[in-house]
Amino acid sequence: MNAIPDVQAPRVLLAATPTRWFDVAVDRWRELLVDHANCEKKAASTALSLIFTYAHDAALTDRISRLAREELRHFEQVQKVMREMGAPWVRLSPSRYAEGLRRCLRTHEPQRLLDLLLCGALIEARSCERFEGLAPRLRQPMGSFYGGLAQSEARHQGLYLRLAEQRAEGEDWKERLRVIGEVEADLATSPDAQFRFHSGCPTN
Amino acid sequence: MNAIPDVQAPRVLLAATPTRWFDVAVDRWRELLVDHANCEKKAASTALSLIFTYAHDAALTDRISRLAREELRHFEQVQKVMREMGAPWVRLSPSRYAEGLRRCLRTHEPQRLLDLLLCGALIEARSCERFEGLAPRLRQPMGSFYGGLAQSEARHQGLYLRLAEQRAEGEDWKERLRVIGEVEADLATSPDAQFRFHSGCPTN
Repeated sequence: MNAIPDVQAPRVLLAATPTRWFDVAVDRWRELLVDHANCEKKAASTALSLIFTYAHDAALTDRISRLAREELRHFEQVQKVMREMGAPWVRLSPSRYAEGLRRCLRTHEPQRLLDLLLCGALIEARSCERFEGLAPRLRQPMGSFYGGLAQSEARHQGLYLRLAEQRAEGEDWKERLRVIGEVEADLATSPDAQFRFHSGCPTN
Repeated sequence: MNAIPDVQAPRVLLAATPTRWFDVAVDRWRELLVDHANCEKKAASTALSLIFTYAHDAALTDRISRLAREELRHFEQVQKVMREMGAPWVRLSPSRYAEGLRRCLRTHEPQRLLDLLLCGALIEARSCERFEGLAPRLRQPMGSFYGGLAQSEARHQGLYLRLAEQRAEGEDWKERLRVIGEVEADLATSPDAQFRFHSGCPTN
């Protein structure tokens, strides 16, 4: 177990997930599991993309590679829970969340890397918050699985924030985190036609 | 340690790596390490791409996810050896090998999946053969690291072949392996202007 990250989820997320999101998630737990499996794959894919793009930064790629391995292990664990709980695979369209955050990314370096790392921290923080909220509401083995994942996501958030701090190159990274955090908070809490792990408040 | 795969490297590879390739590799070991790190990343990326494309096949994605994790762990290990032995990162163009194999892939399913798995088996078999040949020729810690990797690659080759056999859907997969194997043997042994981990026989 790594050290507890300095910056905890409540200071990173600028709005709490609405209660309605949790109610819908408990009701539509099969869809939640399938979308969660997709999220773990995408997290690994995003990490791998950082490893390719910033190949010259061995300290970064080394840490991000470990993170990618952990995301893949979570993916395998979600698939195991899907089998155990009878949640068959279905094709799901992605939520608006990742695309919405991607629009925040600046196109030049080193600003782009900083934004990618801050987005990573925000996504992990939101995942942590939702896993924590879901754990006591879901039946087993999903509940305890999600409780354990909340701790992993808190660690990942800490890693992304430390990397962001180290690579800010003089920029006020906390202010930039706040700016992207406003976008994230809106994506995660405003009315959303879709229900997904990272969706806003489901309207149906 | 998994069971020894049924089909061993000599029966998969249709030509042995020329001695000259090993001589050049020992001489240009820093470049070899950097290209090797790229290969591990690419192996993880190819595995992840299989996980996305064949998301409905949980038995396949589960095994391939474990393989991707192992490739990433190898990537971290290569970077560690690079640090220990003083091999700095440099940008290297890819070899002709992956692109040459990609041209063999059929475009329709289920033939495409079979071809991807057979290409995976061939790449792992070639890696295994080269690691085995390199291990006694290289200085430490590179030599013993490569000796250990040869065993992993043999296991990976066995996994790809078992998956190919299971998903051949009536096609003569051994004959298809031979056809792609001819292309692979040519790419790995014919004169090649470049030196890379999977290059042909270096001409300079």
